Order: sequence, then structure tokens, then C-alpha cells
Amino acid sequence: MRYLTFMLAGACFSLNALALTPGNEPIQPIEPVEVADPAKVELGKQLFFDPRLSRSGFISCNSCHNLSMGGSDNLTSSIGHNWQQGPINSPTVLNSSMNLAQFWDGRAADLKEQAAGPIANPGEMAFTHDLALDVLRSIPQYQQAFDRVYGKPQITLDEVTDAIAAFEETLVTPGSRFDLWLKGDAKALNDTELAGYRLFKEVGCTACHDGQAVGGNSFQKMGLVMPYATLNPTEGVAGLTGNDADRMKFKVPTLRNVELTYPYFHDGAYWELEEAVDVMARLQLGRELDKVQVEQITAFLKTLTGEQPSFALPILPPSTKATPRPKPFD
Amino acid sequence: MRYLTFMLAGACFSLNALALTPGNEPIQPIEPVEVADPAKVELGKQLFFDPRLSRSGFISCNSCHNLSMGGSDNLTSSIGHNWQQGPINSPTVLNSSMNLAQFWDGRAADLKEQAAGPIANPGEMAFTHDLALDVLRSIPQYQQAFDRVYGKPQITLDEVTDAIAAFEETLVTPGSRFDLWLKGDAKALNDTELAGYRLFKEVGCTACHDGQAVGGNSFQKMGLVMPYATLNPTEGVAGLTGNDADRMKFKVPTLRNVELTYPYFHDGAYWELEEAVDVMARLQLGRELDKVQVEQITAFLKTLTGEQPSFALPILPPSTKATPRPKPFD
Repeated sequence: MRYLTFMLAGACFSLNALALTPGNEPIQPIEPVEVADPAKVELGKQLFFDPRLSRSGFISCNSCHNLSMGGSDNLTSSIGHNWQQGPINSPTVLNSSMNLAQFWDGRAADLKEQAAGPIANPGEMAFTHDLALDVLRSIPQYQQAFDRVYGKPQITLDEVTDAIAAFEETLVTPGSRFDLWLKGDAKALNDTELAGYRLFKEVGCTACHDGQAVGGNSFQKMGLVMPYATLNPTEGVAGLTGNDADRMKFKVPTLRNVELTYPYFHDGAYWELEEAVDVMARLQLGRELDKVQVEQITAFLKTLTGEQPSFALPILPPSTKATPRPKPFD
Repeated sequence: MRYLTFMLAGACFSLNALALTPGNEPIQPIEPVEVADPAKVELGKQLFFDPRLSRSGFISCNSCHNLSMGGSDNLTSSIGHNWQQGPINSPTVLNSSMNLAQFWDGRAADLKEQAAGPIANPGEMAFTHDLALDVLRSIPQYQQAFDRVYGKPQITLDEVTDAIAAFEETLVTPGSRFDLWLKGDAKALNDTELAGYRLFKEVGCTACHDGQAVGGNSFQKMGLVMPYATLNPTEGVAGLTGNDADRMKFKVPTLRNVELTYPYFHDGAYWELEEAVDVMARLQLGRELDKVQVEQITAFLKTLTGEQPSFALPILPPSTKATPRPKPFD
């Protein structure tokens, strides 16, 4: 009987919808996050939005991981201090706690380790950790908030990155239409979207794009079957290991909210989801998809857009006489 | 009896507190805003936060009028497209609806006229109005929102700036301690703050800094009694009129939330409120204030910090295939 249903499914869309059931799928729904320490999350949110963690006083975490825009900047590569062009596309911060490691090459083990990077990167926020700490220590409201959360006399980098990571861990996006379907709402997806999901599994996308985040849990070579043509010189994991086998190996990005996180791939070279689907199928799976198939998979991918984190814009405490001043132009 | 109270007031702080009563003051409290058209305000909020109104896709209204930071950027002068240094200090957007005109030189009659300026200014957002409209028209959710609010077939610049202005009109800051005092809460201010307020009136600050916004309702020459020394070449109203009498004439800024809107003056040359008070007294009023007097006025000024606008960070609708792409680096 199961076999028969499957056979019929090949011929008829409305039967397909019946044939697909959410049990035992390679993708799991995202659950709403439970906030263990609201004071820490609130502090982390302020830090995430505070441009005083940059040399210029102009760039915050939210500049390149904009929570109004899917946790990304929707640019090919990011704009850093003094309008420097970044080397790589800014990955979304949404659901990033589900990644096996952080950055495209996985060079940070977790969100806490990641958070320290851009602050001191001369091409990004171009500050120093010491100066960032001087800024925070000079502001009584920050000092009090750190005291409340960590109970130690002096703010440390470890605490700063811990608070930012705690905020970022709340940035999950449950409630997508696909998750509603996974949880048993058969009407949450239409026939095209279901056909796209079936294809997504059938052609092998779920080999890498699986789990809660629909990705983020392995490193893979970009251009497995056919090489990826790009002008971007980034070498991926090989940049860390020096190992030739790691050339063009990158962390598989999450496909959650992929509709919002254009342009695509580590080089941000593709702006349209249809193009990205086509490229992936050819280069990673050796499959030529036709137009209808690409549209079906694209339709499925758009059902992965979840509820965006909703919170009041944080109000930042003012600087004091002791606060190091921003230096945007020198 | 009134005269006697005044005489006593000079000698005794606790009697001063009794002597000052909120009636008939040169400053009026800010009232909470009543939103007439929530859909328009919500649309304007999205536009205010949308960096796609800039050529780079990186700079939004909120970049330089940051609502986490008193509606300003807390920089000497702002950072524009390609990291250009702006010519003047970014004025706060908070309570800006109370200004008699917009920009330091008043060249825009109102917020609606102002909003069009930075979008097309090559040193700021460096876009064109036509391209900004192309962006918005290419995004169905924006098109629907404009349809709902304005009921016309095509989005216009007039509608864009009208919606942004409607949002900005909600950015008022009632509930400051000074306003509580004005409304009859005698304990809202301490003796130092009240002494500062009395001095503020006595030395003549309220000649220009009065009304609901404690400023914003006249143009005055910067350096009335003694010239203002600055490296900033901006000429104020004379830049518009060519009239020598208008040299260094600027709109008097609001002092509401002045604790949050450092650095001060059109050239952003002074970072500390105490310095700004001292400079103003000497240059505008020909008065040398002693340290205690400066501290008292500063203490009063800090009571003008009101409730900051609180709202959920807007979520922006994604671009489509038809959306002109950002050009940060060409």
C-alpha cells in the first residue's frame, strides 16, 4: 500500500500532498527559545546594537547582521571601517546557535568566540578589545548591568562576548510554514511547495541541508561535481589548515529564512534564489533541474521563512567624560 | 511677598525649592503624541530603518539619527556614502517636529521636506529619488502598504517623505523629570537642579531655549557677544541667503535629551555638557559662570532627558528580482 501511494504520488499533485507526511523527515522544526537569563539577554542586545564597540562609533554587530533584514546585510560582501570591502558574504545571525561552528570557515568554535572577532578585525569594526572594554567600563549603566549579570568588579571580554552570544541564542525563527507542516498542519504547504520539498530530498539536497537549521552542521567543498567559478579569492577551511584538500571547503549555510538572506554563497555572487538552486544542483549534485523543478524547490525554500525576532529597539546608555571617543576619520 | 521670597531664595536652597513653582514658566512640558494614522507611522518607521534608500544599501535614516542613541549619531560630523565626512553635526530627530524649520540652517520648511534631502545628497545616502522609488515599487509589501495608506496606484516621493515625517512626528520624549516638575511634582527635581533652572533663566538662556523643545524656535548668531572659534567652514543661514548678516546664524537646537546628543554645536566640537554651558554663557550672553554655576545648569539640563521612543525594531520586506541592487563599491 505504501508503495502504491508512492507510485501514485509521481503522477498526481493532490495525491502527493496526501502521500507526504511529516513523520521521520530529515528536517526538524525550530522550537521557540526559552530565555534562561533575561538580564543577560537584554545586556547582550544592547551590546549587539552599540556602535561604540567599533573604532568609528558607527558600526555595530547589527550593521552587518541586520535584524531588520534577516540577520544579514543583503550585500555581496560587507562594508567595514573606512568603507573597506569585506572578503566574504555576511552570514545570517538568525539560528546561528545551531551551527556546528561559526564563520564560513568555522574558525570560531561558537557564538561567544565569534563575537570577539569583528570588534578587533581591522577590516570590520577596527577596534581593540582593550578599548572596547574601556568604553563599557566608563559607562555606569553598563557597569551596573554587568555587575547584575556577572557579579564581578570589572567588565571582561569574556563577559562581553558571553552576553552577545546569549542574545544571539534567542535569535531563532520558529513558526515557518514548513514547520507548521512538519507539526501536522497538512494545509500549511501547497502542492507546488510539497513537490519542491520532495524534489529537495530526492535530488539529494538534504544530504547537507538537514536538521533544524536545514544546514549548518557540516563543512563541504563548494564545487563537488563541477568547480565553482568565482572571482573571490577566499579558500575556505584551507585558509586555516593550509591543507589542499580543504580548498573551497565551507560551512554549509542554514537555509532557514533564505528568502531574506540574499545574495547567496560565500562570495554573494547570486542574488536570485532560483539561480542558487540551479547552481547547487549542478555543482554539488551533478543534476540539471528544469525550470519547473527549480521553481518548485524555490517555492519550498520560501516556506522556511520563520517568525523574525521581535523586540524593542534597545536604548543605549550615554557615554561619559571618561569614555574613549570614536575616531571615524583618523 | 513675592519679592521677599525671591530675596530669600538667593540665600537658602531649601527655600528656593519652595519659591520656584511650575506655573507660567518659559518651558512647557511635552505631551505624549496621539497617533492619527498607525498604518502610515508603521510604514514611515520601515522607511526610516531601510538602508535600501541609499546607494550602498548600508545607510538608513537611523544610521545618523540613531534612535538607540538619542536620535543622533554621537559623532562630530556624520559618516556618509563611501565614508565621506559630513560637513556638520547630525541634529537629533527627537522632538524635531517642534522645530520652526529643519536642518541647522533651516533650509527645509518641515520634516517632510527634510526627509528628501539626505537620500539624494551625494555626501550622505548618495542615491537618487527615482532609484529610491524604483526600489520601493519593486517590493510588493511596500506597494501594498502605500496602497493602504495613500490609495494611489504608484508610490511617489511625496508619499515616501510624508510617511517618514509621520513616523518622526511620533518621536517625542515626554515624561522627563523636568516635565514632571512642571506638572506639579515638586520632588521631581533636587535643589541643585532647581538652582540650575533658576540660573538658566536668570542669565538669559531662556531667551532662545524656551518652549516645549527648549529651543528650535528661532535662528540666532553663534557667537553673539564674542566670536565662536571653529575650524568648521559652515556659514549657517548665510550659505542660503548670501547675506553677510546671516553669517554663523543657525537654528537654536532643542535642549531636550541634550545629555544624549553629544557632541555639541553645529561643528560637534564640544563633547562635555559643562563645556557647552560655559561656551554658551560667554559667547552668547557675555557671562562668566563659575564651576558651581556650570554644574548646576548642567544638572538641570540632564533633567530634560525624557522617555525615549519605544517600539519593535521594524522587519523589512525582502527585495525582489526587480529591485535595483545596492552599489556600495562602484
